[in-house]
Amino acid sequence: MEEAEVTAVMFKALGDPVRLRLFSKVASHPDNEACVCDIADVGVSQPTVSHHLKKLKEAGLLVSERRGTWVYYRVDPGVLAAMGKLLTVPAAA
Amino acid sequence: MEEAEVTAVMFKALGDPVRLRLFSKVASHPDNEACVCDIADVGVSQPTVSHHLKKLKEAGLLVSERRGTWVYYRVDPGVLAAMGKLLTVPAAA
Repeated sequence: MEEAEVTAVMFKALGDPVRLRLFSKVASHPDNEACVCDIADVGVSQPTVSHHLKKLKEAGLLVSERRGTWVYYRVDPGVLAAMGKLLTVPAAA
Repeated sequence: MEEAEVTAVMFKALGDPVRLRLFSKVASHPDNEACVCDIADVGVSQPTVSHHLKKLKEAGLLVSERRGTWVYYRVDPGVLAAMGKLLTVPAAA
């Protein structure tokens, strides 16, 4: 995919209020990462949370790591670069 | 709409490569605004450009002003605040 397509996939994934809340909870967590137990309180069922977290990972927004019982999520380091670039350099065709 | 819904509408509008390129061209323009004549070169027809610019305005991403022959676009001042907030404060329900 071209650069604009890759970045558009990220934004599209954030174009859903539940996914946006989940991403925001991870992105704003003081530890820079969040256990799924920290972020599941978004008003939908656990399977729905898991589904949306999977979509956020597929879009390149989050990365995850299992440690013991829990899976921890953090923002993919490329996200801020992609979003920042959008505002300073025209998105390449 | 709730805060997360409003911000999700912004991201959804950017979830299309052509709209993303148009937004990016406005956001990265040295004058902080761009004439439609500056940004129409995204590989689609002029009516399609107009359609996408309308969607970006409806989503609260761009504002426009007609001066003489041309319409000028700039990023809505609320956009960076909404995006920045997403990364520092959990999106409100």
